[in-house]
Amino acid sequence: MSAPAITLLTDFGTADGYVAEMKGVLCTLAPAIPVIDLSHDISPQDVTGARLALARCWRRFPAGTVHVVVVDPGVGSARAAIAVQSEGRILVGPDNGVLSPSLFALDARVVQLQVPPLASATFHGRDIFAPVAARLACGASLDEVGEPYTNALRLRTPQPQRQTDGALHGEVLTVDRFGNAITNLMLAPHVQDGMVTLGMQTLRLVRTYSDAAPGELVALVGSSGWIEIAMRNGSAAAELRISRGMPVQLVSH
Amino acid sequence: MSAPAITLLTDFGTADGYVAEMKGVLCTLAPAIPVIDLSHDISPQDVTGARLALARCWRRFPAGTVHVVVVDPGVGSARAAIAVQSEGRILVGPDNGVLSPSLFALDARVVQLQVPPLASATFHGRDIFAPVAARLACGASLDEVGEPYTNALRLRTPQPQRQTDGALHGEVLTVDRFGNAITNLMLAPHVQDGMVTLGMQTLRLVRTYSDAAPGELVALVGSSGWIEIAMRNGSAAAELRISRGMPVQLVSH
Amino acid sequence: MSAPAITLLTDFGTADGYVAEMKGVLCTLAPAIPVIDLSHDISPQDVTGARLALARCWRRFPAGTVHVVVVDPGVGSARAAIAVQSEGRILVGPDNGVLSPSLFALDARVVQLQVPPLASATFHGRDIFAPVAARLACGASLDEVGEPYTNALRLRTPQPQRQTDGALHGEVLTVDRFGNAITNLMLAPHVQDGMVTLGMQTLRLVRTYSDAAPGELVALVGSSGWIEIAMRNGSAAAELRISRGMPVQLVSH
Repeated sequence: MSAPAITLLTDFGTADGYVAEMKGVLCTLAPAIPVIDLSHDISPQDVTGARLALARCWRRFPAGTVHVVVVDPGVGSARAAIAVQSEGRILVGPDNGVLSPSLFALDARVVQLQVPPLASATFHGRDIFAPVAARLACGASLDEVGEPYTNALRLRTPQPQRQTDGALHGEVLTVDRFGNAITNLMLAPHVQDGMVTLGMQTLRLVRTYSDAAPGELVALVGSSGWIEIAMRNGSAAAELRISRGMPVQLVSH
Repeated sequence: MSAPAITLLTDFGTADGYVAEMKGVLCTLAPAIPVIDLSHDISPQDVTGARLALARCWRRFPAGTVHVVVVDPGVGSARAAIAVQSEGRILVGPDNGVLSPSLFALDARVVQLQVPPLASATFHGRDIFAPVAARLACGASLDEVGEPYTNALRLRTPQPQRQTDGALHGEVLTVDRFGNAITNLMLAPHVQDGMVTLGMQTLRLVRTYSDAAPGELVALVGSSGWIEIAMRNGSAAAELRISRGMPVQLVSH
Repeated sequence: MSAPAITLLTDFGTADGYVAEMKGVLCTLAPAIPVIDLSHDISPQDVTGARLALARCWRRFPAGTVHVVVVDPGVGSARAAIAVQSEGRILVGPDNGVLSPSLFALDARVVQLQVPPLASATFHGRDIFAPVAARLACGASLDEVGEPYTNALRLRTPQPQRQTDGALHGEVLTVDRFGNAITNLMLAPHVQDGMVTLGMQTLRLVRTYSDAAPGELVALVGSSGWIEIAMRNGSAAAELRISRGMPVQLVSH
């Protein structure tokens, strides 16, 4: 049975033609299967950014979808090339943790892909991941494209810690295009209110951006359940010079 | 009857995975319908930019196309979520004026969409607009997805004014990637020549970019009929520090 | 017989709606044929960048694919609009050298397209190239869309020269998103080692990025066979202020 779609998530940009080469391979080897761009604007070599973007979306695609993820600073090194079957979807990419969101499922199976002798040492996206994705999308099984592999690198999103002061101590996971800082803080079930602290700022929790006054800094529960720090009609990250890893605290009540 | 395509126009960028989430929803709920990216590079919260881009293209798609437009600073607020049927196309998005190009047609019909109880307060693109677009693309009627709505916000492109000096006084609507400044000035029918003034600059009207000398600033009738200010092999906007709303005048003869 | 796909390669960006207009035309005139974005992020008017990106990918698409390339500083001037049939693929664009990779094939045939009387003088992508691409993709022959044309501009990638010192003298062709500088140097067959010089820097040749120490500048054979200059976990171009045309030398042994 053929896949409903092949998706692409890379840090290649598009201007250099690398993504175009991968699309040419896919269009040749899996001609009837739609190719969907997730993003090619992941920051160069930003495995964490790609992992977080993938975490948001991979299970929203229908069963059978093949996700190709190429953010691959270690291309050509000893790092393995892998394919994963997890919760009905298939993922193909380097074994550097970028596919982690799919690796924690109980039914996750992983195989290591062969590196063809003529593969470029610098572009496995074109020479390994795209051809294997095409085969899998056309119905090949995981066992037809690789050997079982058990040591895939699993990167976990850091978990916030409850401190003796009663506050939940977490950190900023990433900053989005709007300057919203996504943290790893979550409200406990049935809790709806609280205060978020970042540096010297204490921010009230609101329901949505427009509950804030223009220019006001607030916290809110974002669309994936994580608490984010936002500024109405502005960039909280620019205003507060927020970057990944900055500590944040939540006191809920 | 199912739609020939669903298009997406947003200010999300792609790197954060928000667009990917919407595509997952569409691919799941409307699996056979192609999804076409119009743009995800609208400047954050730039309703005007999205409205102008939409104005250029929405009627060029075939009848039945569903356009999903999500530039939505007021997400989660009291602003309505709407769907529009206009000149054979369907448009889905927030009621903040971004869908205005479709609202002026005589046959335009508008419905207000229900907000599902579990919808995120910050991401209606994923939780309302994409699911509704999928239903409409699969053949649902406007009445099946919402209630008639009569107060949709209609934003008009500002019109130039004829002044007592005989000149047409207008303004810069937007600046494109090439640094061309698109104005709201138009030549009257059968008029082919004129001079355009912006600040201290008076620019002759030419037919196309290459009628100018390299580095020369000129005016010309752009591909949508509006007069634009351009610099051959350069950026008129950078050279003249042009921004939206700057006044321009046209003397035609 | 209809094309497996139509691809788009432009310098338009997407935010202004120009690409969206072209997609509307294609979706209307060639409704069943997938449209694939190669890139819209070519630097404005960068014919060389588009030519190099096209060179990488055009033959990787299946026979019958129609490539539409619109990087067109001379739009509306006397430069011809052309279509090319070459090695089973079809290419449509301006006669400014951007289609050169397809023009050197022995079987390359070129026709000059008619400019419809109502075509905009500034947007042939929408008014000429997209409609012709749609016709060709739907099965029209080259002769149905234009007249034979023999003078198409062929731009060659500059060739490195062997100097009396035994070194191969070449230049930087382009810099990619990762800051890798792609040169026109190639290793001779069966040669596997050498030293690359750029300015005061002499760089050892390695097999892949991760053979370098973090921050080390190295040279390697890239995925198209050209030698590139790279910095592990960094941007060689930023570190060495590399730009197009800078001289490089290769001494192999």
